[in-house]
Amino acid sequence: MNVQTERIFLNELPLRYEAVRARSIALAEPLSEEDCCAQSMPDASPVKWHLAHTTWFFETFVLERFEPNFQPHHPAFRVLFNSYYNGIGDKHARAQRGLLTRPPFADVLSYRRDVDARIMTLLAHPFADYAYTELNNLLELGLQHEQQHQELMMTDVLHLLSCNPLKPAYAETPRLVAKPAAEMEWLSFDGGVVQIGHDDQEFCFDNEMPVHRQFLEPYALASRLVTNREYLNFVESGAYENPIVWLSEGWDWVQTQQWMRPLYWQRNDDAWQVFTLHGLQALNLDAAVTQISYFEADAYARWAGARLPTEAEWENAAIQSLNATDNPTDSMQFFGHCWQWTSSSYSPYPGYVTAAGALGEYNGKFMSNQYVLRGSSCVTPDGHSRTTYRNFFPATARWQFSGIRLAR
Amino acid sequence: MNVQTERIFLNELPLRYEAVRARSIALAEPLSEEDCCAQSMPDASPVKWHLAHTTWFFETFVLERFEPNFQPHHPAFRVLFNSYYNGIGDKHARAQRGLLTRPPFADVLSYRRDVDARIMTLLAHPFADYAYTELNNLLELGLQHEQQHQELMMTDVLHLLSCNPLKPAYAETPRLVAKPAAEMEWLSFDGGVVQIGHDDQEFCFDNEMPVHRQFLEPYALASRLVTNREYLNFVESGAYENPIVWLSEGWDWVQTQQWMRPLYWQRNDDAWQVFTLHGLQALNLDAAVTQISYFEADAYARWAGARLPTEAEWENAAIQSLNATDNPTDSMQFFGHCWQWTSSSYSPYPGYVTAAGALGEYNGKFMSNQYVLRGSSCVTPDGHSRTTYRNFFPATARWQFSGIRLAR
Amino acid sequence: MNVQTERIFLNELPLRYEAVRARSIALAEPLSEEDCCAQSMPDASPVKWHLAHTTWFFETFVLERFEPNFQPHHPAFRVLFNSYYNGIGDKHARAQRGLLTRPPFADVLSYRRDVDARIMTLLAHPFADYAYTELNNLLELGLQHEQQHQELMMTDVLHLLSCNPLKPAYAETPRLVAKPAAEMEWLSFDGGVVQIGHDDQEFCFDNEMPVHRQFLEPYALASRLVTNREYLNFVESGAYENPIVWLSEGWDWVQTQQWMRPLYWQRNDDAWQVFTLHGLQALNLDAAVTQISYFEADAYARWAGARLPTEAEWENAAIQSLNATDNPTDSMQFFGHCWQWTSSSYSPYPGYVTAAGALGEYNGKFMSNQYVLRGSSCVTPDGHSRTTYRNFFPATARWQFSGIRLAR
Amino acid sequence: MNVQTERIFLNELPLRYEAVRARSIALAEPLSEEDCCAQSMPDASPVKWHLAHTTWFFETFVLERFEPNFQPHHPAFRVLFNSYYNGIGDKHARAQRGLLTRPPFADVLSYRRDVDARIMTLLAHPFADYAYTELNNLLELGLQHEQQHQELMMTDVLHLLSCNPLKPAYAETPRLVAKPAAEMEWLSFDGGVVQIGHDDQEFCFDNEMPVHRQFLEPYALASRLVTNREYLNFVESGAYENPIVWLSEGWDWVQTQQWMRPLYWQRNDDAWQVFTLHGLQALNLDAAVTQISYFEADAYARWAGARLPTEAEWENAAIQSLNATDNPTDSMQFFGHCWQWTSSSYSPYPGYVTAAGALGEYNGKFMSNQYVLRGSSCVTPDGHSRTTYRNFFPATARWQFSGIRLAR
Repeated sequence: MNVQTERIFLNELPLRYEAVRARSIALAEPLSEEDCCAQSMPDASPVKWHLAHTTWFFETFVLERFEPNFQPHHPAFRVLFNSYYNGIGDKHARAQRGLLTRPPFADVLSYRRDVDARIMTLLAHPFADYAYTELNNLLELGLQHEQQHQELMMTDVLHLLSCNPLKPAYAETPRLVAKPAAEMEWLSFDGGVVQIGHDDQEFCFDNEMPVHRQFLEPYALASRLVTNREYLNFVESGAYENPIVWLSEGWDWVQTQQWMRPLYWQRNDDAWQVFTLHGLQALNLDAAVTQISYFEADAYARWAGARLPTEAEWENAAIQSLNATDNPTDSMQFFGHCWQWTSSSYSPYPGYVTAAGALGEYNGKFMSNQYVLRGSSCVTPDGHSRTTYRNFFPATARWQFSGIRLAR
Repeated sequence: MNVQTERIFLNELPLRYEAVRARSIALAEPLSEEDCCAQSMPDASPVKWHLAHTTWFFETFVLERFEPNFQPHHPAFRVLFNSYYNGIGDKHARAQRGLLTRPPFADVLSYRRDVDARIMTLLAHPFADYAYTELNNLLELGLQHEQQHQELMMTDVLHLLSCNPLKPAYAETPRLVAKPAAEMEWLSFDGGVVQIGHDDQEFCFDNEMPVHRQFLEPYALASRLVTNREYLNFVESGAYENPIVWLSEGWDWVQTQQWMRPLYWQRNDDAWQVFTLHGLQALNLDAAVTQISYFEADAYARWAGARLPTEAEWENAAIQSLNATDNPTDSMQFFGHCWQWTSSSYSPYPGYVTAAGALGEYNGKFMSNQYVLRGSSCVTPDGHSRTTYRNFFPATARWQFSGIRLAR
Repeated sequence: MNVQTERIFLNELPLRYEAVRARSIALAEPLSEEDCCAQSMPDASPVKWHLAHTTWFFETFVLERFEPNFQPHHPAFRVLFNSYYNGIGDKHARAQRGLLTRPPFADVLSYRRDVDARIMTLLAHPFADYAYTELNNLLELGLQHEQQHQELMMTDVLHLLSCNPLKPAYAETPRLVAKPAAEMEWLSFDGGVVQIGHDDQEFCFDNEMPVHRQFLEPYALASRLVTNREYLNFVESGAYENPIVWLSEGWDWVQTQQWMRPLYWQRNDDAWQVFTLHGLQALNLDAAVTQISYFEADAYARWAGARLPTEAEWENAAIQSLNATDNPTDSMQFFGHCWQWTSSSYSPYPGYVTAAGALGEYNGKFMSNQYVLRGSSCVTPDGHSRTTYRNFFPATARWQFSGIRLAR
Repeated sequence: MNVQTERIFLNELPLRYEAVRARSIALAEPLSEEDCCAQSMPDASPVKWHLAHTTWFFETFVLERFEPNFQPHHPAFRVLFNSYYNGIGDKHARAQRGLLTRPPFADVLSYRRDVDARIMTLLAHPFADYAYTELNNLLELGLQHEQQHQELMMTDVLHLLSCNPLKPAYAETPRLVAKPAAEMEWLSFDGGVVQIGHDDQEFCFDNEMPVHRQFLEPYALASRLVTNREYLNFVESGAYENPIVWLSEGWDWVQTQQWMRPLYWQRNDDAWQVFTLHGLQALNLDAAVTQISYFEADAYARWAGARLPTEAEWENAAIQSLNATDNPTDSMQFFGHCWQWTSSSYSPYPGYVTAAGALGEYNGKFMSNQYVLRGSSCVTPDGHSRTTYRNFFPATARWQFSGIRLAR
């Protein structure tokens, strides 16, 4: 986060701030206050909580740091909307976020408006150069953080609505008809010592740094993502009843959780359907399979005689492909469809250093028993993806737009 | 439920129906839609669910039985708002009632209005005598059922608000200052063969029938309920750390659930407070202790060198006391303060017969591992209490207005 | 336990003591040290633990009380072999009894011999009259206690062996062929005020006292126990898939525990078998069904259009039947086949007083959420049954020799 | 496992087979049959089960493959002693291994003798060259497998005995007094592209292959293991109450499992003691800390301003150090003290291929959510360690001889 001042034009930041913040509100637009308050499982959070927590982030890490005579908007919010920062103090129990019917939705909107106004006041103020840099860096971190929560708002709402027997749609707009999937090809990449990670010339999260070297053996990556059609073959082959294709721990989950198909698939009479933000839809066989756990991705790869890529293989391939003149359109589907499980456990890069203070808890403390996903999904905000981005979830997580790219 | 037609004046029933139904809506008045949707634990239900379920009851057991060409208001509601009637079909999972952000609150109000209108149409219709009786009986059962849920709405909302660190009040009206508690006396009652249960001349639930005889040894009952002051002595004596006063199972709960005081009590600095429907209040030492589990009531009685009454002892005493000319004011606090745990396991009276069909599931199937409470509480609707009424909860239940009357 | 000295002839007590103690050892004879150490579930205990605990009982409640300069056999045993007496101090965790590979089996035998020798020394000693009475009462309680554990040794071993895929037999002796079951008849009993409980003229447990009166409506009891043939009809009628015949809580257990038949029944090809102390045997259709939970007994009774008796009904009928001159042979199967679930929750009799000190924990503290069983079973020691005896288990317990007698 | 025939001298194999097999029996020598049957937690297995399972391994993967007219020793053993090989068929539930009081200990010894005799017969037989190679490879795998279980027998017995309040010792021999720990120094290693993994010229497990290249940045390793003295400083600094030094998931375990010190440490009066195979001992402050989870190792490293090494860093350093002429004595404590947690998630090496058939389940299916440990411990059999060896356990595992080497 040593972003240089000269890279951020101060007169652009207020507009960017307002645009990102407004998008969160827009995402909540199709939802009722009831929808925004409910929590469908401990892993997911209510939309209202997301709206408040992202505001808490600006209040805690920007206003409290820079505002003269800082006073919190509401003392209790410091605890209610703290997600996991032990350095800040107590936190409301994660599994009980859905019980926060108070503050009411309107008060959370007021909270947002108050913090937004105070941020604008701050930006209108003359600062020392050093402070500008730090302010800009923290604001940018806050906006990137808010964008992460925008994606979570969508995956969490989808999960909530999926639990409702009425199967309500978040948005009525019908999905575009997908084109037939291209033939899958194997694209070869040279190995050798490659450069991995972010050079910190523009914004990135601390877990993408530092740039370092890794040695890769030559490898090949699939030219596109695994489709629903291909995954359906896996399902219909009886894979969910065959321990041989699963990791031991994955097979335990298949049995105890009675996994039999992707999370949102269901079979009605003779047709496969999938629950989406647009309601229950016929399964589009040409689209990328999503809402897949690591265990399912790994099992599919084994069943298909392939494997998942490492995150270094993915990053190296994405950089090479997107730099090639003949691929300005991401024909390889690196971005915008679904996050792609890698076989890499989420761990610190060599030389990784966490930030000082409570912000040091942003990423580093989660580096155990999770797997890295690369790319971005259909609900990732524009501008919030890059080749070095490291998303991460436990191997059992199924409620994200997460899918499969094969390697060998 | 063999209520005689002549006892119900048909021109009174519509007014009574409207009054009871309107009261449910009035109880929800101080709450937001968010408040009405949340579920704080599997044992409690959202207010919106209560409003819908009581409507479902009329729709299922009255309209479907009597309405020509009956069509359900919404086919899915048959499942969503079925509480526990296996005879009706599938039920929405109890622990997931808080995820029903749809149907929205407004749709549940529409559901109520639709069913109410159809009930009114039904009542305006000429019926055969036999049908009149059955209709009246079912309507009365539906109204009594709704009153039960009115009480649960209050206890469930209290629990939900108690989980909120903001400690919001349901109603702002300050509570009346309680009078000093009267001196506790022991009132003696002769035993012998006494008559227990309801004679079915007016409405009662099936579990109050039939009238039968029991033999009681002579006994004494406390002239009033145990007060907060008395229970505080128990707490401060270290009773929650002393296994000797507890039932074995109760002691397990004390330890695993870390019970240390009544559910809504808390100690702030040097003062005891209690969370109520009016928010956090100073503990009124003269009021009856409430939100007490059976295990706590039993332990208190043992600690005090007494015991809990059986339900027959309670009923016999209540009948005698209320019939006495010198006690028209319930100076013994049988009603209107809190439900009073008895030592009687909830079991069928000799000769008990369940109703035919799904309504037979109303009471009988819960007759195991629960204890009978007698009386009524501060949130029991007017007219919904009588000496033969049998309320029942598991020995661990603490979120009701349940307290203690001693016997020996 | 106010047993009078004159009832116990002191020269008989040593013989009786030795006989009861020897029987425990004899029961362990067919088992290996490994068999005696394992614990198959928290509810069951290892045989070695039973042998040690019954010895601990004599050491703690007799030797420590009467022996001059009492020293414990081993200080750690005070904790290791304390079952549930909080008044004595710490207890080894119940679920971890199977981890006590030390003390070795031989040391437990030494423990028994040491305590037995010291008890004999005590009995050879002259005492004051008052002390004689107390000593005799405590010794008798210890012997009755040991007989209770002799039954548990058998039910716990049966459960352990049932968990072993090799299905080993405890004893090879083949079971006697059962006679065809007699036709079931309904025997009528007058009601009225009857006397219930034990008059304390001979040994009884405190929970059988005091004698008191109860009012019974006229009732009828089945002339014999429900047979395997009858229960098989219930199973094959689909009762385990039909919620209507079950208590609500019972139906939850059926579903979550996947109950489909009695605990030790299994179907091999076309034949029903049952696992017994003699290994896997063809199901004897004429024998009484056993290893039945309260929930199953209750459901069977409902399915059969009958109900379970109350414990007072059972006791009154047993006394009348056994007193009748024409029934010296217990043709009604009150004793020696299986314990018989009653519909009575286990609660104190009117006027019940627990003993002072830790022995007060023997019975009273378990009087919640359990049901009374009456009679005795095929593994109850001779002389350890009587009409007033109150056995008790939770409604879900299935590993006892517990069966069904119908009432109406 | 493509071990060449010429490397194994057939006349040596029978002797080696007998020596390894005899050592398992010798390890059980100090234990009673009861000790050998009990299972203290699902992760651990009874000694008797280890003795049977290692025999099952030879029977299933050697005898069944090579013996003409193979007949199993006992058909049920195929299921009882299968650990986790789905390809072989059913398995006895892992958590119920302690209930297998049958077959008795003596029968397991017979099982061992029978299989041993049949293996010897097989080795005396002339084979085709190809078959010799395969037979030798499978026998060697079986012996290495048995050595792994010899270590587990010790860690599992230690855990079982630690659960016994009598704190019995496995072996009475007093431990040698440890020398004062040397000063800890940082030893630097060049990075660059290094070779990792086993070249398959001698026996190794499949997870150590293939040899491949990795790029390492320059790094430093501690010259010795973290001592009890150093770890005690960590404990006494309040680290178990300070979330900042823990991974998020580790902190959850600290709180929910109430971790406050290493698994077998306890504080008696003013002295720290540790439970060992020799019973309760004074904590040797100069010895390496053991019985540490990954979460504790990681937290310690963070607290100490260092980190854990990757497995490649460890392997590269071990090879360089042990090859240096001045270090023939492993002064760096790579082997023989405790397994050393690395920061590397257990995952397949590039190009890893599992064996065909059920043996393919040996290692590969466990490659998720576990961490690699390197080195060997004080209970690892002689000859069963090497620089490329990959041990692995979940991050929460504490019952192994696992400790900490720092890196930076």
